[in-house]
Amino acid sequence: MGILTDMATATFTVKGMTCGHCVAAVSDEVRRVPGVRGVDVDLASGSLHVESDEPVAPAAIVAAVEEAGYEVVA
Amino acid sequence: MGILTDMATATFTVKGMTCGHCVAAVSDEVRRVPGVRGVDVDLASGSLHVESDEPVAPAAIVAAVEEAGYEVVA
Repeated sequence: MGILTDMATATFTVKGMTCGHCVAAVSDEVRRVPGVRGVDVDLASGSLHVESDEPVAPAAIVAAVEEAGYEVVA
Repeated sequence: MGILTDMATATFTVKGMTCGHCVAAVSDEVRRVPGVRGVDVDLASGSLHVESDEPVAPAAIVAAVEEAGYEVVA
């Protein structure tokens, strides 16, 4: 496989983030999930975009978000 | 002077705090101001209550709040 097709991406919606500290807390926790290579969080929309070396179980991302103190709603 | 009269207290109103991380950021910065002994921040009202060993210049508290990324409005 080529470089691009080795990547997996997934998008979630996170509820409860109100400021940049919240974004940082979610990013930090999700970034620690094994296999995750990149995380992008949009405060306004609650969008959480995850790039990983291979597909990561959504439950692992949900758990990381909850560890940070927030909730995945989609 | 007695123990109680050695203390000074002052209350400010902080604008822009949206979550517990914001409260922690403000508390941490204000607590570092020389002479400050205790800090209490109420997220809902924006109230910042400062106890100090002796009167502290309000400008020092305002500067600490701004360092944390927020604004004193009263």
